[in-house]
Amino acid sequence: MLKLYHAEPRANSLKALLCFQEKNLPFQSVYVDLHKFEQHESWFVALNPEGQVPVLDHDGVIITQSTVIGEYLEDAFPQAPPLRPADPVGRARMRQWNKFCDEHFMNYVSMHGWHRMVSIIARSIEGGEFEKLLARIPLHEQREKWRTARSGFSEADLSNATRKVSVAIDRVEQQLAQTPWLAGDSYSLADINFYSSGGMALHRLFPELQVEKIAPNLMRWLERVSTRPGVQAALNMPDHTNPALRTFAGEQR
Amino acid sequence: MLKLYHAEPRANSLKALLCFQEKNLPFQSVYVDLHKFEQHESWFVALNPEGQVPVLDHDGVIITQSTVIGEYLEDAFPQAPPLRPADPVGRARMRQWNKFCDEHFMNYVSMHGWHRMVSIIARSIEGGEFEKLLARIPLHEQREKWRTARSGFSEADLSNATRKVSVAIDRVEQQLAQTPWLAGDSYSLADINFYSSGGMALHRLFPELQVEKIAPNLMRWLERVSTRPGVQAALNMPDHTNPALRTFAGEQR
Repeated sequence: MLKLYHAEPRANSLKALLCFQEKNLPFQSVYVDLHKFEQHESWFVALNPEGQVPVLDHDGVIITQSTVIGEYLEDAFPQAPPLRPADPVGRARMRQWNKFCDEHFMNYVSMHGWHRMVSIIARSIEGGEFEKLLARIPLHEQREKWRTARSGFSEADLSNATRKVSVAIDRVEQQLAQTPWLAGDSYSLADINFYSSGGMALHRLFPELQVEKIAPNLMRWLERVSTRPGVQAALNMPDHTNPALRTFAGEQR
Repeated sequence: MLKLYHAEPRANSLKALLCFQEKNLPFQSVYVDLHKFEQHESWFVALNPEGQVPVLDHDGVIITQSTVIGEYLEDAFPQAPPLRPADPVGRARMRQWNKFCDEHFMNYVSMHGWHRMVSIIARSIEGGEFEKLLARIPLHEQREKWRTARSGFSEADLSNATRKVSVAIDRVEQQLAQTPWLAGDSYSLADINFYSSGGMALHRLFPELQVEKIAPNLMRWLERVSTRPGVQAALNMPDHTNPALRTFAGEQR
């Protein structure tokens, strides 16, 4: 039995949800309400000591980290539609992109998402309440991120994050000028990673980067990814975010 | 034909060298002299636009990133002795540790290595020469690291790095109290990663953390890894580092 603990179909939760939908794997969905900080509650931290979604429970075995979950489903369900190229070189290309997304892209898009959305939430919480909330966050880095969200990300950090996003757009555009998908000829976990980590909405999140103008191959790729039935199915899962705060997907600035 | 471009048997170069030695794969070794900044020369940047070692050339196909090279050799040479657990859960554990080493460990040990060794080198270069050197480094992050090595890492960054290393020691010790190897019952790329990324010399690099006292399982694991014939073979490859500057491996403070 496959059980996935996840939040809205965005970012790391979307990454895992997309794998299930694309592979047509039936799973039990357990919604974790980040707006109520359920990911820091003791029942959840008992599942994942890092207090982060998504978490996969496969017959009682717990797998965390969305990139690892993606490869796990490939290894555990070889009969389901593959999301990993068949040849060793394709797999290496996929893993290079996964590393790039995880280490040089996701956190920088995320910083802008937090700056626009989580900062508003963090500031709406009364000071004593906020410290109690922080005390429950198991991961040092995550506590610091919440603290910074409240005090405000520095202009230097935000502009460095925009630079990293801009580098990513150039790299992806160059790749997609040569191959239809990031890892080569087949749609893979690399496309799912880049899409979920922010690629889905760069043109709306960073209008100043003029993605539509400078990255036509990326825009065509985006259209091809977004219209996939598995992607549509994942995106149509419930979204409990306050509509006024749906900045990560680029609906608002 | 397998050709590996690498530097001294330390850090990312050691990671790749260990995979070859453990798998008994014959390869042509091409030494890249980081002391002469060969990794930034045009012939090398043509191979790897990021200007970093190691680089694998397999019959003309170029694979970069040591973690990716490790998985590539598993996929491409399934008959050679495996460095990846056979079962999907073991592979997931291996990849979780690989991500942990790559994102939360390696760069922090590295900062201390740079603080103790590269800073001395960077300061020994005349200012105009140093700027010329920087101009040839393709990766923004690497340029900034060199600049900081010359001006000096901040106490706050160094102490945060020590904190990260300390967290890693605790996590590894907890794991090795339960299983003989990081990913479970078999020696894998995860052990190779942690060892090469700094695990080999934590007790010498950070005596203040008292690794020998607080992490007996890690110390026993270290003994088991270091005495493996493949590890010995990799460690005995030529080391051109100035002996007075061999701080990364912990020989000096």
